[in-house]
Amino acid sequence: MYEKYMLEALNEAKIALEEGEVPVGAVLVYKNKIIAKSHNTRIQDNCVIRHAEINVIQEASKILKDWRLNDCSLYVTLLPCPMCSSAINQSRIKKVICGTVPNNSDYTLIYQILSDNSYGKPVELLTGILEEECSKILKNFFSKKRD
Amino acid sequence: MYEKYMLEALNEAKIALEEGEVPVGAVLVYKNKIIAKSHNTRIQDNCVIRHAEINVIQEASKILKDWRLNDCSLYVTLLPCPMCSSAINQSRIKKVICGTVPNNSDYTLIYQILSDNSYGKPVELLTGILEEECSKILKNFFSKKRD
Repeated sequence: MYEKYMLEALNEAKIALEEGEVPVGAVLVYKNKIIAKSHNTRIQDNCVIRHAEINVIQEASKILKDWRLNDCSLYVTLLPCPMCSSAINQSRIKKVICGTVPNNSDYTLIYQILSDNSYGKPVELLTGILEEECSKILKNFFSKKRD
Repeated sequence: MYEKYMLEALNEAKIALEEGEVPVGAVLVYKNKIIAKSHNTRIQDNCVIRHAEINVIQEASKILKDWRLNDCSLYVTLLPCPMCSSAINQSRIKKVICGTVPNNSDYTLIYQILSDNSYGKPVELLTGILEEECSKILKNFFSKKRD
């Protein structure tokens, strides 16, 4: 089941790639149904907050007419950054399922923010779903950037 | 000069209060001019990301047509949360000037996120500008909530 939703997030990452963005995709699942899909749109929207996770949180809040996203799970191809981790934590999302966790990522900080009790609710974190595919699309993107 | 801009942020916090929101306000200053003002709109916008800081970052990026807010300073009546601190860090804002830092706030975590080199650029942090006024409006709000 995890793979099924991560494939959809990966598909969003591919759309980001076609648009020249860092290829990260996310989907938000509520009651076993995807209610929001998006990808990184930072360059095209000229705004630092437009990460895939923020985009799906905003979309889902609009659909559920609530800033609290209780009973929702968020699938994302890359370990969230601190901004997105805190948005996830504050929005009461139950669980985050990630694709890849790069070696240079600050896993401890992200885990601390997701588990925080003072701003929001502790969020369960699961990593390594479709790891290879989620990692490959990012590695290809950055190696082409260096060419 | 700090007080002048903080007064504008405080004015935004007062607008938030009238709207029934947690009273936090922010302004973004570029080349000695306020280019964006906003306040917390989480309840009315039904979205967890709608903090004052995120609102001014988004507005300023639109005006400057760039996700990089180099040479900008952000004034906010309350110490930013981890989400906003990371958005500030990633957006290349140079300096954050805060009003109040509540006793129960996680200053160490916020400082760590603002100083981070891996997601964005280290941000200078100054606290305690119009402390009393910025603190009072929040304390009044929460004491009324408890009545």
